[in-house]
Amino acid sequence: MTEKKGTIHQLSELGEFGLINRLTSHLTIHNKSTLKGVGDDCAVLDFNNKKTVVTTDMLTEGVHFNLMYVPLKHLGYKAVVVNLSDVYAMNAIPKQITVSMALSSKFSIEAIDELYAGIRLACDNYGVDLVGGDTTSSMTGLVLSITALGKVEEEDVVFRSGAKPTDLLCVSGDLGGAYMGLQLLERENEVFKVNPKMQPQLEGYDYILERQLKPEARRDMLKVFADQKIRPTAMIDISDGLSSEIMHICEASGTGCKLFEDRIPMDDQTKQMAEELNINPLVAALNGGEDYELLFTIPVGEYDKIRNHPDITVIGHITEKSEGANLVTAGSGQEIPLMAQGWNPLKDQE
Amino acid sequence: MTEKKGTIHQLSELGEFGLINRLTSHLTIHNKSTLKGVGDDCAVLDFNNKKTVVTTDMLTEGVHFNLMYVPLKHLGYKAVVVNLSDVYAMNAIPKQITVSMALSSKFSIEAIDELYAGIRLACDNYGVDLVGGDTTSSMTGLVLSITALGKVEEEDVVFRSGAKPTDLLCVSGDLGGAYMGLQLLERENEVFKVNPKMQPQLEGYDYILERQLKPEARRDMLKVFADQKIRPTAMIDISDGLSSEIMHICEASGTGCKLFEDRIPMDDQTKQMAEELNINPLVAALNGGEDYELLFTIPVGEYDKIRNHPDITVIGHITEKSEGANLVTAGSGQEIPLMAQGWNPLKDQE
Repeated sequence: MTEKKGTIHQLSELGEFGLINRLTSHLTIHNKSTLKGVGDDCAVLDFNNKKTVVTTDMLTEGVHFNLMYVPLKHLGYKAVVVNLSDVYAMNAIPKQITVSMALSSKFSIEAIDELYAGIRLACDNYGVDLVGGDTTSSMTGLVLSITALGKVEEEDVVFRSGAKPTDLLCVSGDLGGAYMGLQLLERENEVFKVNPKMQPQLEGYDYILERQLKPEARRDMLKVFADQKIRPTAMIDISDGLSSEIMHICEASGTGCKLFEDRIPMDDQTKQMAEELNINPLVAALNGGEDYELLFTIPVGEYDKIRNHPDITVIGHITEKSEGANLVTAGSGQEIPLMAQGWNPLKDQE
Repeated sequence: MTEKKGTIHQLSELGEFGLINRLTSHLTIHNKSTLKGVGDDCAVLDFNNKKTVVTTDMLTEGVHFNLMYVPLKHLGYKAVVVNLSDVYAMNAIPKQITVSMALSSKFSIEAIDELYAGIRLACDNYGVDLVGGDTTSSMTGLVLSITALGKVEEEDVVFRSGAKPTDLLCVSGDLGGAYMGLQLLERENEVFKVNPKMQPQLEGYDYILERQLKPEARRDMLKVFADQKIRPTAMIDISDGLSSEIMHICEASGTGCKLFEDRIPMDDQTKQMAEELNINPLVAALNGGEDYELLFTIPVGEYDKIRNHPDITVIGHITEKSEGANLVTAGSGQEIPLMAQGWNPLKDQE
């Protein structure tokens, strides 16, 4: 029987093993440490004397993503990247992932192929091996759960807990873009719901859309640290918003901090969209989340090593715990206590 | 403010970080290899020269479990055990797990405490450390995704692919019990839906109920292998049903097999319930699944090492691939090709 082009197939035609075979038959192995990938009860990994790091993230439809405006390929890519970002935040190199997904019957085989194409693209771009997973059904919607494993020399691991008073608080890239991209997508989705013939107005906002739909993890920062012989004293990735992440570092390290409002890096598109939607861009940077930049602290003596890096910004410094964690405002220089108002997935659902 | 006994709390009162703190504050670390558990972007593990194995499983409400008759504590316990079973099936020792869960707002804090109590009990019973996870919300129901890591010496790993013709096909414990336990629970749930005042009729069926609600993984078999210096040539755990698992071994090993119907071990309660419900108990053993016993092959010369073990049964042997994978029926000795009719979570949902 030949397959008609454009035909949509139901998942039930394939069954679980058929689907797994389809999804895993084109996987490339990138790492020597992957002794055995998909196809047994477990994958088998060999890390020799390195330490293993492990992290996991779950994304649920209707909570973390809206398939009205998130293409499945982008979703697959992003689901991998958010886990790799956690591995890089330990100063470790991601090597393997496992992917579990629950699917409702509304998804066709072709839709899942798209999702997996995004997952495979992220694996290829970051040199990571997909070594296992579980594929099952859900009563409603899509749930994706990814676990990432990485390796690192023991002396290189960076925890959240090593920040010391006077250390510089640094961030890669710019902040608030992913949140403003989401606001833009939601605005256009509302317009579309009212009038499906309206074309979405997305021109000129490609950067913030990409920040939301196809974020990248800051692998390049680990190369900067290695090349410049910098060992951050503490590090975390920015998934919930700058404010929440800074407070994690201060809590784990037993310190306070001063964050300077006027030093927080933001892209012009982020500011422009914020103005258009009448949102304070500072809120997007502090509480928006999903930027997947790295927030890290370095001893003040290492300032010269990063001062000229175009993609690293010093946004403040660590203080004694007794001074608290404060934002120093741009105009008046007033100090306001930081609050972790990051995204809370467990707040009451409407 | 004091807490009134018996008060039910909403998850939104705690928030994500509050819930994580509550759930992870009583965790015990069992393994030296757990350098850093919960509380950073990743856990950090140290396996030295051993190999790492990794496996993952996802359970979704309404598909894998029905909270009408599955207590949350049992669900948490079982969700861990099914992953550990995969690790044992590699002849490896489980060491760490990560737990991700998506919860709808119908769950109270107390309900999640119960779920976690089951997860912690399994960790304690099997000496496994919970080292990370993700806790988020779902639009409907509960989704649990667990990843387990284990360690093993390279020369001890047992894959599915090593079975050779003449090898004996062996199974631990007995089969079909978990499936018959589920049938009993579903029958009583139907009765309850019609008349909520009816008490469930579960007396005399404690064994099959425990097989369904609180299965254990066969850690003890690894001790038998070590003590008797047996190295299985192939091994898999029975999660989808004996038929499906045998075919996985035959496919991966490039062999056929003969499975003898009258050798398949079944408990009296399994047979009794099957009779009561007019189900062929063979179907429960071959296709029921969820028994979490180990199916393994050993060279025929090692028969004496296991022949007297009360919990290991030889149910057949491996043949050349050309002979096919066949069931030899009890009465007539007729050979019927095995079919993988195991549980398929992706079949059309009603």
